[in-house]
Amino acid sequence: MATGKGQLPRLHPVTGLKLGTASAGMKTPGRKDLVVMEIAEGSTVVGLFTQNAFCAAPVTVAKEHLAITTPKYLLINTGNANAGTGEQGLSDALQCCEALAEIATVKKCQILPFSTGVIGELMPMDRLLKGLPAATASLSQQGWADAAAAILTTDTRAKGASLQYGNDRKITITGITKGSGMIKPNMATMLCYVATDAAVDAELLHRALRLANEKSFNRITVDSDTSTNDAVILVATGASGIIINEESFDEFVARLKTVFIDLAQAIIRDGEGASKFVSVVVEGATDTHEALAVAYTIAESPLVKTALGASDPNWGRILAAIGRAGLKNFDVNAVRLQLNSVLIVENGARAASYIEDAGQAAMQPEDIEIRVSLNRGQVTETVWTTDLTYDYVRINAEYRT
Amino acid sequence: MATGKGQLPRLHPVTGLKLGTASAGMKTPGRKDLVVMEIAEGSTVVGLFTQNAFCAAPVTVAKEHLAITTPKYLLINTGNANAGTGEQGLSDALQCCEALAEIATVKKCQILPFSTGVIGELMPMDRLLKGLPAATASLSQQGWADAAAAILTTDTRAKGASLQYGNDRKITITGITKGSGMIKPNMATMLCYVATDAAVDAELLHRALRLANEKSFNRITVDSDTSTNDAVILVATGASGIIINEESFDEFVARLKTVFIDLAQAIIRDGEGASKFVSVVVEGATDTHEALAVAYTIAESPLVKTALGASDPNWGRILAAIGRAGLKNFDVNAVRLQLNSVLIVENGARAASYIEDAGQAAMQPEDIEIRVSLNRGQVTETVWTTDLTYDYVRINAEYRT
Repeated sequence: MATGKGQLPRLHPVTGLKLGTASAGMKTPGRKDLVVMEIAEGSTVVGLFTQNAFCAAPVTVAKEHLAITTPKYLLINTGNANAGTGEQGLSDALQCCEALAEIATVKKCQILPFSTGVIGELMPMDRLLKGLPAATASLSQQGWADAAAAILTTDTRAKGASLQYGNDRKITITGITKGSGMIKPNMATMLCYVATDAAVDAELLHRALRLANEKSFNRITVDSDTSTNDAVILVATGASGIIINEESFDEFVARLKTVFIDLAQAIIRDGEGASKFVSVVVEGATDTHEALAVAYTIAESPLVKTALGASDPNWGRILAAIGRAGLKNFDVNAVRLQLNSVLIVENGARAASYIEDAGQAAMQPEDIEIRVSLNRGQVTETVWTTDLTYDYVRINAEYRT
Repeated sequence: MATGKGQLPRLHPVTGLKLGTASAGMKTPGRKDLVVMEIAEGSTVVGLFTQNAFCAAPVTVAKEHLAITTPKYLLINTGNANAGTGEQGLSDALQCCEALAEIATVKKCQILPFSTGVIGELMPMDRLLKGLPAATASLSQQGWADAAAAILTTDTRAKGASLQYGNDRKITITGITKGSGMIKPNMATMLCYVATDAAVDAELLHRALRLANEKSFNRITVDSDTSTNDAVILVATGASGIIINEESFDEFVARLKTVFIDLAQAIIRDGEGASKFVSVVVEGATDTHEALAVAYTIAESPLVKTALGASDPNWGRILAAIGRAGLKNFDVNAVRLQLNSVLIVENGARAASYIEDAGQAAMQPEDIEIRVSLNRGQVTETVWTTDLTYDYVRINAEYRT
């Protein structure tokens, strides 16, 4: 299941970035499972990576390589996460870089490797290496849609976002992402690749990435499980000739954020087993920490999520979740709760105006907004999540078999 | 579903405590849904209550009453939690006490009320009040088994534990509990009533309750959702004439802990949709906080729980959970992981000896032990949990309809 239409939008090419794909047969014969991205000379590249202590071998290698040089190539495989694989996994990730470096005649450290798929199994290296020439042979600025499809695992649809802004000369921002389960980013999420043809120096680009990421991938959860392989990479090729400086920075970040939020929401819309797209808005909080504590406690409650899946306005479960979010000196009598446009709880208890039929009706749409007003401060935060359905259980019970 | 045999053991009567039940028709006509417990003069009564900020009206009233006097009666209803019900809920809880106080000719404040069931609906007070005379008329020291059945909601089986110890003169400890979903206690859990005929002063009894509770109800999780109505009550009637003092305290606590752990495990064995009984043992932690952080992150991971339900030794998900538990300066290369007797991970990666068939075989039994060695300290903690199955989703999607 998935929510929304989910059609891949038109993805504008970004001059300076080429993408190639191949079928290496990593897990399922015949499907595209290998992606190579070529980054033009003079680009700036920044990234954010999972904070899971058991980070995958390619994450370790990618972080090391990114720290010492500007990458020329990104290499992504699906079907195997190369995580929990110890020394052999590290050696395999490095061998991937070596093999591509040889074909492309660059240095090994100019390659960043990324893997996604099953954890704990060794990479089928022979198959991966055999697929590399076909992937590099197909490098093209038009390759975004193919790459969006090739990086998927349990995802049911390709995910991308793209925009252009500016008057005479335009800046393009295009990105793709994958992820469907094991989704609760911490600093970064899943795999996400965004490129722009703006010229942005590394410090500004990194700042832009953090700002955009914070309000997008750091605001989603499917199942609270942080992956071992999460990474988001932002490339600025500079090919448009338009330089982002302090003056134009805010607009650039705003546009980037639009693309990032589109991508993050696309992951939620394609969340494993999802039949609802749920926005949890917490307002009137004293600070961001508190707003997010309440939002995530609701968004991750199995009881709230099963009620959402059943289109049941079981608001008692939402109150129970708010009540265990750990707020200090919390006056529950100030709490207000709205499901879409229906006021359900006022002053901490069932609103006088509330009738069950209205609650039932509010729960029918595919898109649900749970709006909690704590009435104790000025901060608002929004988190996006899915419901919990039979299909989530089926997908994750059957994933390896 | 549920695991284990789940037969209610023989529950020894506790002199000084009588239990009566009735069918008030709170939710399902004909089933027992009202329990009254009568506590003999001279008893000591202590309790622990939910820490959920949205605690139910009866919890508020019970805490207030317990603070000012020794209760003579406990009054428990199922079918309605009287939570999220605002001022009317408080007034209803007090009215329950008044009505029973009148029948029993005691003071209103000598009654502790408890409710469990649907959140957010007003109590059907007329039905409850009409059921009271029948409940008090049936008061008997033999009433434990009937009471164990009458306090259930989505539980599939009655839960009790009972033991006697001592040589010539014996001390009896008997308890019943209920709970199946919305289970992650914080200080106390669900409804649990334990009585002993030992004579224990309030300070010692409270200390014993905290000690027993900490290693039992505070070590279980079905779905990480803390209830609004959790309470555990411990009564010492003193009828045996045996006084618990500092000298005999440790043995008393050990025996009490046995009963508490039996009751807490019975809740997990009857966890909503459970097909597995899972012990998560974390050893080699630097402190309790760290051991529990790892244990609960594993025990609450939807991905680990669905893999358990599928009897799939998907240990990569366990590593991913350990990796996001928030440990400081965590050397993942020291981690060891065992599923029942099978060594799966050693030095942070797949053990050389591990073969998938052995993992598959280890996952087949109904009782699974996940043993994680962090190898960085001396502390061991155990948490008990269930798997996540279709049935969990079905039960919680259909609960109100």
